[in-house]
Amino acid sequence: EKRSLNLCANAISSSSNSGYDFKTLKVETPADFVKHVEINRPNKRNAMNANFWREMVECFNQLAKDEDCRVVILSGAGKVFTAGLDLTDGEIFQSLVMSETDCSRKAFKMAKSIPKFQDSFTAIENCPKPVIAAVHSACIGGGIDMISACDIRYCTQDAWFQIKEVDLGLAADVGTLQRFPKIVGNDSLTRELTYTARKFSSEEAESIGFVSRILKDKDQMMKQALGMATNIASKSPVAVQGSKVNLVYSRDHSVSEGLDYNAKWNMVMLQSEDVMKAASATLNKTKAVFSKL
Amino acid sequence: EKRSLNLCANAISSSSNSGYDFKTLKVETPADFVKHVEINRPNKRNAMNANFWREMVECFNQLAKDEDCRVVILSGAGKVFTAGLDLTDGEIFQSLVMSETDCSRKAFKMAKSIPKFQDSFTAIENCPKPVIAAVHSACIGGGIDMISACDIRYCTQDAWFQIKEVDLGLAADVGTLQRFPKIVGNDSLTRELTYTARKFSSEEAESIGFVSRILKDKDQMMKQALGMATNIASKSPVAVQGSKVNLVYSRDHSVSEGLDYNAKWNMVMLQSEDVMKAASATLNKTKAVFSKL
Amino acid sequence: EKRSLNLCANAISSSSNSGYDFKTLKVETPADFVKHVEINRPNKRNAMNANFWREMVECFNQLAKDEDCRVVILSGAGKVFTAGLDLTDGEIFQSLVMSETDCSRKAFKMAKSIPKFQDSFTAIENCPKPVIAAVHSACIGGGIDMISACDIRYCTQDAWFQIKEVDLGLAADVGTLQRFPKIVGNDSLTRELTYTARKFSSEEAESIGFVSRILKDKDQMMKQALGMATNIASKSPVAVQGSKVNLVYSRDHSVSEGLDYNAKWNMVMLQSEDVMKAASATLNKTKAVFSKL
Amino acid sequence: EKRSLNLCANAISSSSNSGYDFKTLKVETPADFVKHVEINRPNKRNAMNANFWREMVECFNQLAKDEDCRVVILSGAGKVFTAGLDLTDGEIFQSLVMSETDCSRKAFKMAKSIPKFQDSFTAIENCPKPVIAAVHSACIGGGIDMISACDIRYCTQDAWFQIKEVDLGLAADVGTLQRFPKIVGNDSLTRELTYTARKFSSEEAESIGFVSRILKDKDQMMKQALGMATNIASKSPVAVQGSKVNLVYSRDHSVSEGLDYNAKWNMVMLQSEDVMKAASATLNKTKAVFSKL
Amino acid sequence: EKRSLNLCANAISSSSNSGYDFKTLKVETPADFVKHVEINRPNKRNAMNANFWREMVECFNQLAKDEDCRVVILSGAGKVFTAGLDLTDGEIFQSLVMSETDCSRKAFKMAKSIPKFQDSFTAIENCPKPVIAAVHSACIGGGIDMISACDIRYCTQDAWFQIKEVDLGLAADVGTLQRFPKIVGNDSLTRELTYTARKFSSEEAESIGFVSRILKDKDQMMKQALGMATNIASKSPVAVQGSKVNLVYSRDHSVSEGLDYNAKWNMVMLQSEDVMKAASATLNKTKAVFSKL
Amino acid sequence: EKRSLNLCANAISSSSNSGYDFKTLKVETPADFVKHVEINRPNKRNAMNANFWREMVECFNQLAKDEDCRVVILSGAGKVFTAGLDLTDGEIFQSLVMSETDCSRKAFKMAKSIPKFQDSFTAIENCPKPVIAAVHSACIGGGIDMISACDIRYCTQDAWFQIKEVDLGLAADVGTLQRFPKIVGNDSLTRELTYTARKFSSEEAESIGFVSRILKDKDQMMKQALGMATNIASKSPVAVQGSKVNLVYSRDHSVSEGLDYNAKWNMVMLQSEDVMKAASATLNKTKAVFSKL
Repeated sequence: EKRSLNLCANAISSSSNSGYDFKTLKVETPADFVKHVEINRPNKRNAMNANFWREMVECFNQLAKDEDCRVVILSGAGKVFTAGLDLTDGEIFQSLVMSETDCSRKAFKMAKSIPKFQDSFTAIENCPKPVIAAVHSACIGGGIDMISACDIRYCTQDAWFQIKEVDLGLAADVGTLQRFPKIVGNDSLTRELTYTARKFSSEEAESIGFVSRILKDKDQMMKQALGMATNIASKSPVAVQGSKVNLVYSRDHSVSEGLDYNAKWNMVMLQSEDVMKAASATLNKTKAVFSKL
Repeated sequence: EKRSLNLCANAISSSSNSGYDFKTLKVETPADFVKHVEINRPNKRNAMNANFWREMVECFNQLAKDEDCRVVILSGAGKVFTAGLDLTDGEIFQSLVMSETDCSRKAFKMAKSIPKFQDSFTAIENCPKPVIAAVHSACIGGGIDMISACDIRYCTQDAWFQIKEVDLGLAADVGTLQRFPKIVGNDSLTRELTYTARKFSSEEAESIGFVSRILKDKDQMMKQALGMATNIASKSPVAVQGSKVNLVYSRDHSVSEGLDYNAKWNMVMLQSEDVMKAASATLNKTKAVFSKL
Repeated sequence: EKRSLNLCANAISSSSNSGYDFKTLKVETPADFVKHVEINRPNKRNAMNANFWREMVECFNQLAKDEDCRVVILSGAGKVFTAGLDLTDGEIFQSLVMSETDCSRKAFKMAKSIPKFQDSFTAIENCPKPVIAAVHSACIGGGIDMISACDIRYCTQDAWFQIKEVDLGLAADVGTLQRFPKIVGNDSLTRELTYTARKFSSEEAESIGFVSRILKDKDQMMKQALGMATNIASKSPVAVQGSKVNLVYSRDHSVSEGLDYNAKWNMVMLQSEDVMKAASATLNKTKAVFSKL
Repeated sequence: EKRSLNLCANAISSSSNSGYDFKTLKVETPADFVKHVEINRPNKRNAMNANFWREMVECFNQLAKDEDCRVVILSGAGKVFTAGLDLTDGEIFQSLVMSETDCSRKAFKMAKSIPKFQDSFTAIENCPKPVIAAVHSACIGGGIDMISACDIRYCTQDAWFQIKEVDLGLAADVGTLQRFPKIVGNDSLTRELTYTARKFSSEEAESIGFVSRILKDKDQMMKQALGMATNIASKSPVAVQGSKVNLVYSRDHSVSEGLDYNAKWNMVMLQSEDVMKAASATLNKTKAVFSKL
Repeated sequence: EKRSLNLCANAISSSSNSGYDFKTLKVETPADFVKHVEINRPNKRNAMNANFWREMVECFNQLAKDEDCRVVILSGAGKVFTAGLDLTDGEIFQSLVMSETDCSRKAFKMAKSIPKFQDSFTAIENCPKPVIAAVHSACIGGGIDMISACDIRYCTQDAWFQIKEVDLGLAADVGTLQRFPKIVGNDSLTRELTYTARKFSSEEAESIGFVSRILKDKDQMMKQALGMATNIASKSPVAVQGSKVNLVYSRDHSVSEGLDYNAKWNMVMLQSEDVMKAASATLNKTKAVFSKL
Repeated sequence: EKRSLNLCANAISSSSNSGYDFKTLKVETPADFVKHVEINRPNKRNAMNANFWREMVECFNQLAKDEDCRVVILSGAGKVFTAGLDLTDGEIFQSLVMSETDCSRKAFKMAKSIPKFQDSFTAIENCPKPVIAAVHSACIGGGIDMISACDIRYCTQDAWFQIKEVDLGLAADVGTLQRFPKIVGNDSLTRELTYTARKFSSEEAESIGFVSRILKDKDQMMKQALGMATNIASKSPVAVQGSKVNLVYSRDHSVSEGLDYNAKWNMVMLQSEDVMKAASATLNKTKAVFSKL
């Protein structure tokens, strides 16, 4: 398996990635306009420490602005995708055990810090470029919160998932309870998985629509993800990113409000040069090349 | 296959349809209280030209008022269901290429014209009578927007679908991004299909809940659709149409608001003669006949 | 089959249940912190009479407050789960046939009485403890409304379901139209089932995500439900109930609003002793015991 | 002043009020279809004890159903309108000082008890009959929450108001922060009054639109309130109560949603006999007499 | 007074108004880019008959598209502004007295016809050009609904207003209950006026913020309205109409949603040539001339 | 006047303000727990340059966290409060004139930059400490957006205001259109001021509820603001800040949602030591001293 992972690593790493300098994330450019973000704490099972939470926001804010990025693949280095929150990290532990004695003052502190954690994954959603999560082996706790904020989810045959929070004595608060039920089609199972914190397999994940494809192993998965990413990157970025913005907005609004917002968005986007380029390419059966965005 | 289509045509056309006089739509009455709307530009692969967009509103507004209509079947004439927007139509082309030079003035024009396109399919949703889409062969671009506004979707084995807009350099803006994700149970696949514009098969459509039944061929499908339509038409129109109104409202509101609205609706509808008729028929194992609505 | 039902009855009944004294509901405690609510009008096919509607609210309000209850199983006694609304009940019949002659005055009466029916099932949703519906044989009309308000749905192989209301000449108004479409992943089938009132099987229910597990027979189902309930009851009640509260809220709000609400909830709940207990148990591989809630 | 208060008392009390039997509230019928609810703990400055909070719900739920009630006047017995929450009441005090040690368990208790307090005043809003608050002298803390839920507010020249909660170390939680800003037209002053807990006069209350009329003294005020109430009671109850229901709904919804709801409401209410009666009376310049509702 | 009205008429009528050909409305162009819509049934006290309701939609839809219109003045011909709904109009009367006997079927009819009435005034709000209502003498019933949908309200000293509907046995359903409370700052008075249907004066209207200016007589008012209109018409239509669109949207949404929508609107509108023109004019203290919109 | 301004400056500046080091803002601590933020570009009429927009976010985010800050006064140095957006600033100018030629790519840039401007003032609203705006002389354009996000507004007799944006060829997009109409009680005047960009006086501002107090001159105003601030700073910060959080939430939600949120907030805040401290102080007529927050 090691060899195929190496192959995969080769397949996926290429050109320059200046500016993406993180301790917990490795950012590469496996193909034109495709960025690969790898959670990079393999010795810690990619557990999410304080640095990780900070860097996720920075990384995805930067990807959002990067004209050389049109689509993102998110995967994990090493044996597992992620073990979730790193409770052994001193800074995170401190944020839960506070010196305050008054519960209302502690609550005010929490009310300021919880949204910061939430923002780390909302940054994925706010980034207008599609994000493909590629999950192998374990995806636990915060991992579910994180990939629920992605656009597309692939996994390996041996992947397994766990909505872990109940086993830590708490209700998930960084996105699972908000996003998971809106991306799958089986509320009964969603609640079962939430209340029991039991592990579920790749097949179960696919059957409820949580992942849209199961691949044999990580190598196959990364190739598939890269193929998909390259395909998306070849499309008009005005069209792709506009689609994401409107899909996200529509999820949270009535159909009537979604249509209104979409009309206001397109009142300028239909004036894009991409429309003419794409129409012309379709007509002439050529391949359109779109300017940076 | 031609023969079975003829059979199907026979099966589905009957009585008078005065008042439904359209260039791009053929309206028939294959059974009591059942209307069949056929997109009727077979030589143009049922592409949606300016007339089509106008006539859809008129047609469904009329169906909404027509007391002889309790359920609608929507299908396409000829080889395919629909090829989507007709970019070769001069009027539609003009609406995209404007003489204005100031982008904000163009935007104001767009802001007025896009909602008109949207209204063409919202008319399907606003019509309180259930609409059954029967799709064969290709259903592309605007076709997805259109059938996403229908109540029930059937297709043939050979049907295929494509959320085409990204390949035209634009984000879909007549309903797909708003309605599609709310009627299926797999957001990961929804986004993949949106961003890549790849074709998907009848099986894939069924697996995510986009269509609820695949039939062998168009003949079988039309028979099945007609059977379903006849069944619905035999029910209390007060009950059926009230159900549609409340399903549409509830999709866009919280459960609590949906319940309140439903209670206000039923505060008069429970006084309907249909309730007594239906209860009595159930009791006496007879068949209730309901007045026009 | 009778024998296995007896076994099941044994398996599921134990300790004291003082205070739960109802005519139409039997409440037992098959395991610590697990309550079993059985609809108990077997001779009437568990039809929902006026007493039932009143007692449901009382029962679930009491369960909501009962510190010895952390999870609820809801099943039906006798041959079927429930036949739905009991139209033979004089009081219910009277509520539909009123002495008023002015339709607006009747409507005011209805506007007061319909929400009372709705409240009977909303009480299930408002109870912060997970509710597992275990359905065998028939689940008709009001039965669908009821289990749509539960958290988890199991059924037997021979179970069948029917959204009956259209056949009674009315649009469902106690929750099906609001909750059913939000817990399944197939709107096309949802509408077909609503407009036609046709029966659907356990397999069809599972395929659209309405039930998350089909068991061979009632005996197996009750064992499975009890196992699941016991599992949930062993978890931190602060975590489990907090999860339910936030899942229900999030269903009805945008992701952004759900996250804000969740943060406010957790600003105190993360201070719970359960977090330390659970973390410590996980660390030491012991089993945490949580105080009453 | 005593004498005028007696006069006022005479003016306002008459016929039978069976069923309204409360410890903290006195309910009378000063005119046909007019109910007068008087907070009746004059020796305690009408402070709101546990009984009061319970009885308010019962009283207004009963008024909501009472066909002999079309409008309500709410005033206070004795020297002041109300001193607000009765912190000297043992039961209320207990609800704030709990035996629980775990803050999350205390929070769950609070999460159940706070809405009960809120319901006491929401009952005023949910009662479809207009409620006229008649305030003299002090109206403090909970008093503001209470009258903010009324429809119309009158006060005496010597009345004064205080949003007291900040001085008790807490944010108001029974309605002031929700309703007050939506019924006045000066957010700057609203916030000043909230953050400082300073008293404000009848003139200031009128200038921001909190009260719509200042009367010389309690006697004058009660006469004016009774006149207004009698006037409203003479109108069609279908029209008046329908107006309240729609005003309350519209405050909390967009104009578009309010119009839709209003249309659904009137689809039956326009069929009321009251419309014909009122139209005919207007035509013939007679006085319409409306049936009970 | 007649003379001053003539003067006013002169002041206000000028250039061509082709295409605005209505029976109940007179449309003139008193100044460049200013349209004056006059309700023109002086012999019927400008009562709103079936034609009026139809023509209002047509007229304001046309004004919305008319590049020669940047602002609208709405006034009434003859002795009063408007007496409200014309109950003597056969068509309107018929819409209330229906041949149907089943109340639910009548309700369905109403549910289709009420929104049509509502649309007549929503057309004013949907027209992106500011509409100034100029009210003299009586403004009754439907008149309140109508001017509540306008942007700015002026009135004469002798104007009086009446929310008449309760006296007709019904709750207002064409906009007053939705819009009036959101444009004034005194909910207590709003409800008093709604429940009692009492007349209120120009002074009272001004004190609650319903009108923003009282003029001595109709002549003065029309001059003032024309001055205001001419002023608005000289501004960038991109800026003015964008402001209206966003004000209307923001009224019905949270601040956060309003800001998002505004940003999407301005992402193209800031690219307008008007911004440069206006900035340059300000810099050079010249007067900008803006292209048609 | 100079002298009184000096007096005022003395009155208002005291202790250390480490960490508040800005180019365009001066932060002082005129009294315990009171921070004074002064816009400090007097030579540029306090025009809002790129630095200002950045520093506002930083400053108010810091104030939000600063335990020594319980209330903020916001005023302007020099002759005027603020002239609004600084169009002479190169960086701001560049953000409007872009090198992109494709309008859709420009729009994407705008869609990213406009929210940044909006965030500068939303930071005022998100800071849970009350902010008192003290306005003298001119408050133009962006100044209105800014103080609309404050809690309380005071002004001098000679203050004047201008919603300037329409004169710059654009619709205001940093908060005026969203917040202004919700804090005043006169929509007719709001729209007049928006569409015409005319200046309005302190009296007009007070009459519609935009400012809650007019003071003779800046000296008087600053004394009054400081008095108010000192008063608020002496209250429980748990109570004051909780009130702001709930007022802001309630403005954007239905009453029912606001009450739910408030209950969740108070489920922990009622456990605060401040409640006991404040209750005890009230009882003993002493002055409570509250811990830092």
